[in-house]
Amino acid sequence: MSVKPGLEGVVAAETKISHVDGERGRLIYRGHRAEDLARTRSLEEVAFLLWNGVLPDSGERETIRREWASARVLPGYLKDLIAAIPREVEMTDVIRTAVSALGSASFEGPPTREQAIRIAAVLPTIIAFRRHHLAGSEPPEARSDLSHVAHYLYLLRGEVPSPAHVRALETYFVLTAEHGMNASTFAARVVTSTRSDLISAIVAAIGALKGPLHGGAPAGVESMLDEIGAEERIEPWIRKRLERNERLMGFGHRIYKTEDPRAAALREIAVRLAAGEPWFRLAVRVEEEALRLLGEYKPGRRIHTNVEYYAAAVFRAVGLPKELFTPTFICSRIVGWAAHAMEQAESNRLIRPDAVYIGPMPG
Amino acid sequence: MSVKPGLEGVVAAETKISHVDGERGRLIYRGHRAEDLARTRSLEEVAFLLWNGVLPDSGERETIRREWASARVLPGYLKDLIAAIPREVEMTDVIRTAVSALGSASFEGPPTREQAIRIAAVLPTIIAFRRHHLAGSEPPEARSDLSHVAHYLYLLRGEVPSPAHVRALETYFVLTAEHGMNASTFAARVVTSTRSDLISAIVAAIGALKGPLHGGAPAGVESMLDEIGAEERIEPWIRKRLERNERLMGFGHRIYKTEDPRAAALREIAVRLAAGEPWFRLAVRVEEEALRLLGEYKPGRRIHTNVEYYAAAVFRAVGLPKELFTPTFICSRIVGWAAHAMEQAESNRLIRPDAVYIGPMPG
Repeated sequence: MSVKPGLEGVVAAETKISHVDGERGRLIYRGHRAEDLARTRSLEEVAFLLWNGVLPDSGERETIRREWASARVLPGYLKDLIAAIPREVEMTDVIRTAVSALGSASFEGPPTREQAIRIAAVLPTIIAFRRHHLAGSEPPEARSDLSHVAHYLYLLRGEVPSPAHVRALETYFVLTAEHGMNASTFAARVVTSTRSDLISAIVAAIGALKGPLHGGAPAGVESMLDEIGAEERIEPWIRKRLERNERLMGFGHRIYKTEDPRAAALREIAVRLAAGEPWFRLAVRVEEEALRLLGEYKPGRRIHTNVEYYAAAVFRAVGLPKELFTPTFICSRIVGWAAHAMEQAESNRLIRPDAVYIGPMPG
Repeated sequence: MSVKPGLEGVVAAETKISHVDGERGRLIYRGHRAEDLARTRSLEEVAFLLWNGVLPDSGERETIRREWASARVLPGYLKDLIAAIPREVEMTDVIRTAVSALGSASFEGPPTREQAIRIAAVLPTIIAFRRHHLAGSEPPEARSDLSHVAHYLYLLRGEVPSPAHVRALETYFVLTAEHGMNASTFAARVVTSTRSDLISAIVAAIGALKGPLHGGAPAGVESMLDEIGAEERIEPWIRKRLERNERLMGFGHRIYKTEDPRAAALREIAVRLAAGEPWFRLAVRVEEEALRLLGEYKPGRRIHTNVEYYAAAVFRAVGLPKELFTPTFICSRIVGWAAHAMEQAESNRLIRPDAVYIGPMPG
């Protein structure tokens, strides 16, 4: 038996949920290209697709709109609970605790779409309540006439966002809702494989997403752009990094060996919203220089701009502060985690590899 | 690429922590037989062994006694947070939420022994606070002159337990502190492999332990004995189960093909404490009949009494109510989870298997 510490190349599941085609730069959700869905569909519709296998018809669209809207109100006990968490605790920890605290007998048994909506729909309310509570302000009253993504922006800002901002953030939500067997999704499947509940699976996934090796941290891109600060500093800054063999945030992906289709779609959105802004011009120049210098320092490595690079630009364009980048990623990816938990629950198979003991034996 | 949905036979780690030798019925912790440790060592000493690789010397024994004792006080905010959780929420969910709420910047970075003590030492206090809060009573003041296990019984009962009860429960704690790569331990390792924090790893493990396929639920044994109720009902009750091909709680183990060494050690303890009790005589008769009938219905299957069977007896003998059986298991196994999180963190390897897409492709 050979040891496979990272389980690379071990196929732990057959899935009908998504296909990450790294060679051809395609991301497929249940037979649909994610970029196509991102142009026209709401997150609620794409969640329906990922969970049910088909897009909703017009009657179902109205039903799910109502289901999501009615699940976005925070129960009173959860407000007290979130308010009890010390203020220096960061938002991802707050979300992990608040989702765990949703757990109750109504979540026992195999994961369901109704349960998934109850968790996914309340996440923005958890985030907004925490932010307002820390700021000493009151979050606006929940409204039922806005889509999930529009309502998220509304909760943070206290005013109804423009359609352009909603579409921009919705594009991000749809494109990052699901991405195959990444580490957080695998954690959710491992927990589900014991026949544990959906809350436990999502809580495990949030914990895994926090890890720096998981990737998916657009906040790092914004920090990099802030550090560079001006056009004339771009080249020396990047060269210094590459000479020390350090990673450039926003470039390269474990799977995509060509352009990440999500990056292309988000760039299009960001250009539309922010083309005239000085910070966006800097971001575009940094991308050009980074790709040029990566080609010079790592010839033949096929490193491209990844989804985080333009996710950071979209976040900035719609006014999301850096500390909400990872929490917002949790809000979108929860859809994929729930899809995988439901699929895993259809099998009765405990996921449990072996370990070999290499320590001492008793005398 | 063949699909391995349960990852059976895939070796995901080399470990120096423990060896579960199912053929020979041995459980080894870092070169020591678990049964030998269980006879004389405290949980704090065995945790030291599992985390450090060696047993503590007498100076270290005094240091760890103090470290554990000083970490058992519940922070004020955590009391408010636990009090906010609706009363119908079960204890395992409460523990998962309370442990998540311990999360803060002081847990960032690779898992440490100091962090592990902070989580493990406070677990009994979380459980006792919740029970007293639901009952409308005040938990007794924390004391620093009792061992971890003695203090757990003290918190639940409000009086210092007898040395025989402490030793009995300590035997359970030591024997179940660690058991190789089970599903909850694997979940902790997957989360740690992203370089996430120890809180996230433990929270994932608690979520996995909740699942009925994980095993490790001595409460099922007590429910079975309660249902059987009297000697004359033993044989028909068991036959009915076995004829329907249902599992008998407390018998059989995925790995042990001979007697589970933990079951033997716990039986010895239970006999000492409860030999004269009617419920214990019933438990012994049920075991005899179960083994006889398992031999009849499943010849050649080598099914033995497992650790849960006599764990249930020890719990009953020391006065632990059924609803605390799984929470108590969390209190012991957290030691093993932390050991594996620390070992996993030494490698820089993300645990992330592949999945194959078997859904439709875009037209």
